[in-house]
Amino acid sequence: MAGACSGRVYIVGAGPGDPELLTLKAVRLLSQADVVVYDRLIPREALSYARRGAELVYAGKMPGRHALTQEEINRLLLEKACEGKTVVRLHGGDPYVFGRGEEECMYLLEHGVSCEVVPGITSVTAAPAYAGIPVTSRGLASSFAAATGREAPGKQRRHVYYGRLMKAVDTLVVVMGVGTLEAIVGEMLREGVDPSLPVAIIEKATTPRQRVVVGTLSDIVEKAREAGVEPPAVIVFGPTVRLRERLWRLS
Amino acid sequence: MAGACSGRVYIVGAGPGDPELLTLKAVRLLSQADVVVYDRLIPREALSYARRGAELVYAGKMPGRHALTQEEINRLLLEKACEGKTVVRLHGGDPYVFGRGEEECMYLLEHGVSCEVVPGITSVTAAPAYAGIPVTSRGLASSFAAATGREAPGKQRRHVYYGRLMKAVDTLVVVMGVGTLEAIVGEMLREGVDPSLPVAIIEKATTPRQRVVVGTLSDIVEKAREAGVEPPAVIVFGPTVRLRERLWRLS
Repeated sequence: MAGACSGRVYIVGAGPGDPELLTLKAVRLLSQADVVVYDRLIPREALSYARRGAELVYAGKMPGRHALTQEEINRLLLEKACEGKTVVRLHGGDPYVFGRGEEECMYLLEHGVSCEVVPGITSVTAAPAYAGIPVTSRGLASSFAAATGREAPGKQRRHVYYGRLMKAVDTLVVVMGVGTLEAIVGEMLREGVDPSLPVAIIEKATTPRQRVVVGTLSDIVEKAREAGVEPPAVIVFGPTVRLRERLWRLS
Repeated sequence: MAGACSGRVYIVGAGPGDPELLTLKAVRLLSQADVVVYDRLIPREALSYARRGAELVYAGKMPGRHALTQEEINRLLLEKACEGKTVVRLHGGDPYVFGRGEEECMYLLEHGVSCEVVPGITSVTAAPAYAGIPVTSRGLASSFAAATGREAPGKQRRHVYYGRLMKAVDTLVVVMGVGTLEAIVGEMLREGVDPSLPVAIIEKATTPRQRVVVGTLSDIVEKAREAGVEPPAVIVFGPTVRLRERLWRLS
């Protein structure tokens, strides 16, 4: 295979949703790509930067069709690179922040294909920002953490213990946590986290349909249920949630 | 003052150093600004997007001159807005990630001036990425945290306890920690963090002069000293540091 796989693959972050949060590098690489393999959660406008005639491959879920598995995506990227193509693998957010970009890049490098990762703006920080919530603030929050909500209490092979984590940082951001919110909040309360801790849920962050639900650890589960919050959403726990009252533009 | 302060202020992140990591929104706002107030740690190429004739104000440290204080910056932004100007306040990284952008925005809003925050790519995630280190990885790291190194052991009014934090997350990223590395590592070791924990220091991240020093908790202080590591640098603690061996492009 050596020599045959002369293509290059760029694993590129497309940011959290607002198409203006694409980087110049993402736009340049999209305009140069022969093939773009894209996720479900990218700003659709991103594809408009691909050159005319570029092959666009959807790797996310479609009605009536299963998503490509990670292994299928890996093989597709390799196959296109071995056809000599320049490939952009476009991720929502940042490929290295809960994005599995490292699996794709390792697979390619192990098969002798050149691979470069281009960071994107992650919803971990941008979703709170667009809701008027800084993840850090002098005197109020000197640290923040981010975790996936997919390792909630009850899950096997857990790595995330939300109560312990919340007690170790000032701000905690949980992604992919809408379905497990009640379990996560329950664990925090059992671990002794203050029930009055401010919590915000930002749905469809940075898009025109962004919606924010604010509460405390003691009432956020009920408020989320009342509001009918759906994924994708980002959940922020911590005192800087209160700054929203002073930072949110009403105009 | 009402009505007089008709200008707008945009608090904009310029990303970690690579000028191609600027967002489309940052570039657009720079091209529309009457005044750009910029930090020391921005990519210098960013200013080339300002329109001809825009007023460029340096807010960082210059030889023989003190930096503007935060209060001076706040007042400058207000003053320019009250002249009816469109102002871009350009931060290195992301204004809401250890950036004090929220202080500027709150000050402006309290004085009746419209303010919008535009996220940038933060070195918290991009510095590791450019060194071949993902902050998360399936099965290896389901959470990460970021903290400033300015609240090291011995400081008054500490908010960050690095040992406890390291034990609660998989990956810990410390910014502004070169000067306090020894104190931070010492605290982790005293708190029982595994001395073989991988650590990487990324100096001048995402720029052509980027340099990476890799070690473990037990030898990183010595390695940093030998290498003569200087700020700005980002320090990453955690098992994903080892993935660099498989992700780093030698080409």
